[in-house]
Amino acid sequence: MAPDNRRQISLSEEAKDGLRSLIFEDDSGLPAQRTYAIVGTGALGGFYGARLQQAGLEVHFLLRSDYEYVHQHGLIVESIDGDFKLPHVNAYRDVGEMPRCDVVIVALKTTQNHLLPQLLPPVVKENGVVLVLQNGLGIETQVAKIVGSDRVIGGLCFLCSNKIAPGHIRHSDYKEITLADYALNYAPCGVTDRLQQLATDFEQAGIPIERSGDLFLSRWQKLVWNIPFNGLSVVLNAATDEMMKDEHIRALAEHLMQEVRIGFAACVGEGDRTLSPAFIEKMLDYTAKMKPYRTSMKIDYDEHRPLEVEAIFGNPLRMAQQAGVELPRTQMLYQQLKFLDLQNR
Amino acid sequence: MAPDNRRQISLSEEAKDGLRSLIFEDDSGLPAQRTYAIVGTGALGGFYGARLQQAGLEVHFLLRSDYEYVHQHGLIVESIDGDFKLPHVNAYRDVGEMPRCDVVIVALKTTQNHLLPQLLPPVVKENGVVLVLQNGLGIETQVAKIVGSDRVIGGLCFLCSNKIAPGHIRHSDYKEITLADYALNYAPCGVTDRLQQLATDFEQAGIPIERSGDLFLSRWQKLVWNIPFNGLSVVLNAATDEMMKDEHIRALAEHLMQEVRIGFAACVGEGDRTLSPAFIEKMLDYTAKMKPYRTSMKIDYDEHRPLEVEAIFGNPLRMAQQAGVELPRTQMLYQQLKFLDLQNR
Repeated sequence: MAPDNRRQISLSEEAKDGLRSLIFEDDSGLPAQRTYAIVGTGALGGFYGARLQQAGLEVHFLLRSDYEYVHQHGLIVESIDGDFKLPHVNAYRDVGEMPRCDVVIVALKTTQNHLLPQLLPPVVKENGVVLVLQNGLGIETQVAKIVGSDRVIGGLCFLCSNKIAPGHIRHSDYKEITLADYALNYAPCGVTDRLQQLATDFEQAGIPIERSGDLFLSRWQKLVWNIPFNGLSVVLNAATDEMMKDEHIRALAEHLMQEVRIGFAACVGEGDRTLSPAFIEKMLDYTAKMKPYRTSMKIDYDEHRPLEVEAIFGNPLRMAQQAGVELPRTQMLYQQLKFLDLQNR
Repeated sequence: MAPDNRRQISLSEEAKDGLRSLIFEDDSGLPAQRTYAIVGTGALGGFYGARLQQAGLEVHFLLRSDYEYVHQHGLIVESIDGDFKLPHVNAYRDVGEMPRCDVVIVALKTTQNHLLPQLLPPVVKENGVVLVLQNGLGIETQVAKIVGSDRVIGGLCFLCSNKIAPGHIRHSDYKEITLADYALNYAPCGVTDRLQQLATDFEQAGIPIERSGDLFLSRWQKLVWNIPFNGLSVVLNAATDEMMKDEHIRALAEHLMQEVRIGFAACVGEGDRTLSPAFIEKMLDYTAKMKPYRTSMKIDYDEHRPLEVEAIFGNPLRMAQQAGVELPRTQMLYQQLKFLDLQNR
C-alpha cells in the first residue's frame, strides 16, 4: 500500500506542476489573478488591504483585537482621497482558518516579528510570495528563513494613517510604496516580473508604486530619513518642523544621515551602489519643506507601544559593525531609544 | 595744583605697598585675615558663605531677588550637618555698595557669567583673588580677562543643596571642594600659598578641601562625570540609578567618559598629565554605588532655568576641536541639550 500511495502523491505533484506552467505567466511569476492576505490589519495593513479589495481583488484579513468588530461591520477608511466603507470583508483571527494566498502582506509592527514563523507558513501558497511592508533593515532576511529567499519581496511605505477605532482607519497623507524584490543576502535583482505584477495590483488600487531593482539600497535610503527623524522625535519630544528649525538639530540630523551613508558604503564595498551626498541634501530640503509631521516612532512612543528600535537602528548598526565601521551617533541614539522604550512600557 | 596731587597719590601708593609687605604672608599671598564676598547667594553661594560666616569670617553677600528678605531676616541653613540660622548677614543688592574683599567667590550659574565684567571689578581688592565655584571648563579664563590671570582660583564643588525659599537653603549631601590655583592658559601651578590660605578658611568652616596643583586636570576629571550624567539625565528624564541600571546607558556613559579622556589628552598633548582609564572605572563604580541622585542640570531643567550647556559641553568641545579631535557623542549630547534648553524656557 505505502509505495502506491507515494506514487499517487508523486503524480499529483507533477500534475500540479503542469497546471502551474499553464496559469503562471513565467517560472518566477505569480498567477494572472492574485489573492492577498493581510497579516496585521492595523493602520497600514488595513488601509492597503481595503484599497486592494475596493479595487476588486480578493483579500483576506488577519485580525486580533478588532476581529469581532470587523467580522460583523467590516472596515471604514476615512481618507484624503475620499472616505469609503467595506461592510463585508474576509476576517480571520487564526491563520489556520485562512485560505493560502498568492501574496501575503506582512503589515505588523516589527516588534511582533517573533510571531512570523507561526503566522506565515499556513497562509502563503507554495509558489506565493511574502511582501514585507515594514520599517527598517534585515526583516526580509528573517522572512526568507521562514519561506525561502526566493519568495520574499520588500516594500517601503510612505504613508500617514492611524487606526482611530476598531476597523476604522484615518488616512491623512501620502500612500506611495517602493517595491523591490529580495534575493539572498540582499543581492540586487532588478525589476522582476512578479514585482511588476504586484505593482499592477497596487496601481489598480490607486497606490503609486516606485519599482526598485535594489532593495538593499532602497532600505538604506529610507534609513537616511528614519534614523535621524524617528529617533530624535522620540528623544527630543519634537515634530519634524521643530527639529529642522533648530540649527543644532538640523546639524545633528545631517551628521546622522552621513553616518547612514557611511554604513551603507561599508556594507556594499567598492562599486556603483552609492548613497550620494546629494541624496542627503534632498532629504533635508524635503523635510524642511514638508508640513509638520509626528513620526511613526513618536506616535508609537506617545501611545506607549513598543518602538521598532531593532529594525530601524539595531540591524543597520550591526551590519555596519560587521562591515568594519562604527557609527557613534547612530549607536548613541540606539542606546537612548532602548532606554526610553523600556521606561515607556 | 595738579602735579602736587599726583605726587600725593604716588606717595600714598608707596605707603600702601609698604603696609602690604608687612601684613601679607608673602608676595603672592593674601592677608592673614581674609574677607569674603559671595557673588550669587543661592543654594551654593548661600551655603558656603553661611558656613564661612558661622566660622567667624567676615562675609558679604550679594543678592538679587532675595535681598529684602535676607537683609531683614538673614539666612537659614537646614543641613545634614545640623541646622543653623544667621539672623544678621551683610546683604547687598549692588556691588557698588559692597566693600572690596580679599576673596570674591563667584557662585552664580555660568549662564549669568555675562554679568561678571560689571560685578567683579568693584568688589575685589587690588591684591585680592576671585574664587570660581562653578561648573564646567574655561570660566577661569573668562574671569582672568576681567581681573588678571594671576588673581583667579578655581574651585570644584561636590555639593547637594537647594534653595527652598528666600534665604532658606537645604543642604542634603556632600560639601567638599577641590581647590586649584589658576595660571595663564591653565598651566599647572602646584599648591600655592594663597591656595593653602583659602583651604584653611574653608576647613575652619568644616568644609573638606582637596588641594590640586593642576586645575585643568581637575576640571576635566569633573567633566568625566558631569558630561554623561548631567547631560543624559536631562535628555532621558532619569536619575543616576536608573541610568546605571540600564546596560545601554551604562555603556553610553562609558563611551562619553572615554571621549572626555580623549579630549583632555588632545588638549595637553604628550606628557605625564593623564586621565587614566582606571579613573573612568572608578567614576562608574562610584556612580553605581551612590544613592539615587537627580543631577544639578536636571534640577535646572525641571525648574525651567537655563542649562549650563556652554560651560559643561560647549567649552570642552571647542577646546578639543581646536586641539584636533572630534568627540561625536559629546557633540550630539550638546546639540540635544541646546535644543531642549531652548524648548524649555
